[in-house]
Amino acid sequence: MKLEMICTGEEVLAGQIVDTNAAWFASTMMEQGIECQRRVTVGDRLEDLVAVFQERSNEADIILVNGGLGPTSDDLSSEAMALAKGESLIENREWKERLEAWFARNGRVMAVSNLKQALLPESAIMIDNPVGTACGFAVKLNRAWLFFTPGVPFEFKQMVKEQFISFVKQHFDIDGDVSLRKYLTLGRGESSLADELEKIELPKGMTIGYRSSMPHIEIKLFARGYLAISQLDKIEAQIRFLLGNAIVADEKVSLAAEIHELMLSAGLSLSVAESCTGGMIASQLIDFSGSSSYLHHGLVTYSNESKVKVLGVKPETLDDHGAVSIATVEEMAKGARAILDSDFALATSGIAGPTGGTEDKPVGTVAIALATKGAVYSQMIKLPRRSRDLVRSLSTAVAFDMLRRELLGEAVIVDYESIGRFKK
Amino acid sequence: MKLEMICTGEEVLAGQIVDTNAAWFASTMMEQGIECQRRVTVGDRLEDLVAVFQERSNEADIILVNGGLGPTSDDLSSEAMALAKGESLIENREWKERLEAWFARNGRVMAVSNLKQALLPESAIMIDNPVGTACGFAVKLNRAWLFFTPGVPFEFKQMVKEQFISFVKQHFDIDGDVSLRKYLTLGRGESSLADELEKIELPKGMTIGYRSSMPHIEIKLFARGYLAISQLDKIEAQIRFLLGNAIVADEKVSLAAEIHELMLSAGLSLSVAESCTGGMIASQLIDFSGSSSYLHHGLVTYSNESKVKVLGVKPETLDDHGAVSIATVEEMAKGARAILDSDFALATSGIAGPTGGTEDKPVGTVAIALATKGAVYSQMIKLPRRSRDLVRSLSTAVAFDMLRRELLGEAVIVDYESIGRFKK
Repeated sequence: MKLEMICTGEEVLAGQIVDTNAAWFASTMMEQGIECQRRVTVGDRLEDLVAVFQERSNEADIILVNGGLGPTSDDLSSEAMALAKGESLIENREWKERLEAWFARNGRVMAVSNLKQALLPESAIMIDNPVGTACGFAVKLNRAWLFFTPGVPFEFKQMVKEQFISFVKQHFDIDGDVSLRKYLTLGRGESSLADELEKIELPKGMTIGYRSSMPHIEIKLFARGYLAISQLDKIEAQIRFLLGNAIVADEKVSLAAEIHELMLSAGLSLSVAESCTGGMIASQLIDFSGSSSYLHHGLVTYSNESKVKVLGVKPETLDDHGAVSIATVEEMAKGARAILDSDFALATSGIAGPTGGTEDKPVGTVAIALATKGAVYSQMIKLPRRSRDLVRSLSTAVAFDMLRRELLGEAVIVDYESIGRFKK
Repeated sequence: MKLEMICTGEEVLAGQIVDTNAAWFASTMMEQGIECQRRVTVGDRLEDLVAVFQERSNEADIILVNGGLGPTSDDLSSEAMALAKGESLIENREWKERLEAWFARNGRVMAVSNLKQALLPESAIMIDNPVGTACGFAVKLNRAWLFFTPGVPFEFKQMVKEQFISFVKQHFDIDGDVSLRKYLTLGRGESSLADELEKIELPKGMTIGYRSSMPHIEIKLFARGYLAISQLDKIEAQIRFLLGNAIVADEKVSLAAEIHELMLSAGLSLSVAESCTGGMIASQLIDFSGSSSYLHHGLVTYSNESKVKVLGVKPETLDDHGAVSIATVEEMAKGARAILDSDFALATSGIAGPTGGTEDKPVGTVAIALATKGAVYSQMIKLPRRSRDLVRSLSTAVAFDMLRRELLGEAVIVDYESIGRFKK
């Protein structure tokens, strides 16, 4: 079974939009054990669309087409498909009624242009879209099924997950017996991880993949078939043994997601005082609905005055040790925790760059502290100075990892292979 | 002249990497007045590469090929091109010497696998890569020139800017006389903007494009040729007249960039107190190096206790009006400003959702205030409740726009077409 994707739309072709739908689609299908073998991106010219539908329908078995189902004049997917197949467009009564009901329900008048969205090629099978005005449809041409989906990411993803995957399984014989495990790592490069894990002898049907998602590398352990799946626990144990502290979360897209879940289930509270991370710690938690139940406040105390006035850092600490120091960051954490007597507080202070570094404390120097009701843990780390954003996101990740380890009752401060540390 | 792009690599096809090279390339060429007409993404299978080179070389005049020039066994672009053209690979002596010198200069031993990077198809023209070990090359096949570039974004971009564009101009007759202006808009949908600007009669050679970059829509005014370029000022004036307050910045990627520049040149200071925006206001400013010179602090006071203790909001204000209210947000702004006597303070408090809404104050209700040394401006707006992230990013943009207008001496509070407002 040969799967391909056709992405349509001037804005995708012209680079005005980075095509995240395409990457998401390929990766989602891969998790089903189905590989996307080619992707063609074309603009909104009718003749280009017709040509690409005809051409690829001779090569692939199933083609996911994305975009071009909207109401405006440059939405041409339906018309192009009808032309490619040599049939006419006809009004799909069911979808027309759904459209009218949709607009009535939202108290809006339906523009005439929306009627276009109910026009499908004669032989098309209509595919429901419960969350938008563009229905999908599928047409058989030459060797291939072409399956049309809307460009709006939210609608597209729902249609792929709820309709496309079952459509594929219904029409083709897919060995659906696959399993995927994901591990989030911190503080170790992709080639170093790969070198380490090469020592493991993988059973047939199992592969290890890597995905860079800064500041993390995600490891994907993929098994196809009963035999490989039955070995997953054993191989996972080997991976954990070899990587140790580098694995910081399972089946999570970020450490913030892990912290959010741990804090919710622990029922404890957190305050954050940030300097160089500039709100990134708080912001990554606030991305999750429900974070208000444990996050007391996130204080970005950028200036020294603010560290003194808001957090109660002593002026002489700043004078004697500087803003980027173990002493300052410990007082920041203690101060932030004390304001509302939170269970925990995280604090950061560092030099994100590109300017502001000194010989003693170059760009990439970051002090991080975790205050609990009974103790303060702190470290000053040396991060690669590749970019301001990387320094901030790595600092955020290390701070989260300190809190994560505390919540799990593990040693708060550990070594990461690619992150240096200043001696106290 | 028909330009196409071929992207190679399993990791791009499989969605492990979002193909930002492709978007950057199309957009860069567009600014040169050259449109990329099709993009094909294929994996690392030799037969797929050979097929796509042969097939597209009959359709396009020039094809930018990206990736597959590395030293490992899955880098097959050079070999595939030689096969497609029916010629052999030969060692390029110049590049071999450059490679050896490169490794010597970096004090490293060259691996045998790197020698592969000097093997080019017999008829290839070598293209220099001053920043990496993979040289580019160009081969003529059928109708097309195929121009091969490395996948590493940094090397790729340099080769496109410094060699590819001049290669195209040398081989094809390009009218390079183009000019592009960009306007950032807020509070008006793409179709509404397009309907409004359809009233303008554009001279030949001028086009208006739209790019959604939530919470903004960016308008691109593109002119090709002397005549169109000479009309740009006139058309821009018409756009400004028709769109009024909707245009919030010129030639900027975000309102934060505009605020950063304005605050730096004004030499004034800012404090931020955020609730529903959760650090987004401060964080977007801190993305810019140098923001520490004007940003005193960004206080994410998520809990009521924190609003009272850190910002000095009166408990009775919270009791009488609630956390999401004009009264509370004004006290938040005044309190945040007073701590360090900043010139300005911005404050937000709202319901980002998806839960937490009430009948009076549904999800999407956000109160925003700007405090100056002499006044407080505030409004409570109703935002579309499509997603938590959209509510937060629109609130951030409106807050920035209030400050921007104050800095420019304009009315602080204005109407935006798609954003409602509660009466005081």
